[in-house]
Amino acid sequence: MIETTIRAATRDDLAFIIALIEEDSVYGSTEDAANPQAPGYLAALAAIDADPNQMLLIATLDGEPVGTFQLTFTPGISRRGAWRCTVENVHVSATHRNKRIGEQMMAWAADQARARGCAFVQLTSNKQRTDAHRFYERIGFSKSHEGFKLKL
Amino acid sequence: MIETTIRAATRDDLAFIIALIEEDSVYGSTEDAANPQAPGYLAALAAIDADPNQMLLIATLDGEPVGTFQLTFTPGISRRGAWRCTVENVHVSATHRNKRIGEQMMAWAADQARARGCAFVQLTSNKQRTDAHRFYERIGFSKSHEGFKLKL
Repeated sequence: MIETTIRAATRDDLAFIIALIEEDSVYGSTEDAANPQAPGYLAALAAIDADPNQMLLIATLDGEPVGTFQLTFTPGISRRGAWRCTVENVHVSATHRNKRIGEQMMAWAADQARARGCAFVQLTSNKQRTDAHRFYERIGFSKSHEGFKLKL
Repeated sequence: MIETTIRAATRDDLAFIIALIEEDSVYGSTEDAANPQAPGYLAALAAIDADPNQMLLIATLDGEPVGTFQLTFTPGISRRGAWRCTVENVHVSATHRNKRIGEQMMAWAADQARARGCAFVQLTSNKQRTDAHRFYERIGFSKSHEGFKLKL
């Protein structure tokens, strides 16, 4: 298996992350891809970096960025005060599909979640992303929930 | 409409919250309902209180607790650095159903999310909770995503 390295994202990765979001979007363009250092992006990165319960990550292959994901660690009352790890914004570069990069990203997320005492890892995926759903079920996730969004 | 009041939960609400989780569970018992001040619950409440991006809430009717929910505010890169508000652990006491308490709880969550500049409110609901799904769609949520969980 090709080994990916997972590391924290920096502002130099914003152009890569935003290009991946655009490439992978099911909504059409939502980004300001020409301005990856726009104030909104920099503020979001700063907020993530300032919060010990947030991690924005980059998967690299031979030093080249090939994927990204974000982890949020949330304390809760249910399950005797269990923490959960929520994964957002999972994307792998289209030119690097079928190399088990996503699998390594999610294994890293699960290890990190275990190390922080989480009871489970959770994520949602747009109903249009049926390939992604097969992927998550293959690596052990259960499609147990409906995911609802309210646009403000 | 009967007006509920929404306020932050305290340790005195833990017995109520845990009883509601038990009453509403689709998993069978996961809680230590006899010990609502058990260290795991108190540690979770302390972690929520210490984190400005977490809110654990109680809905009351004439001063009596009737519902609970938790909000997590998460910064992200997508949508030009948009924040999102994730709702977890939404429960209304069985004896107070059909009084639009849940609707007021979710309206409060949306107001809070707007005030903090979030682009959307999101939540997941177990596929067995079909009444809840109808409720979320009725109040404007879109059932656009599949929700996946990996138990650790």
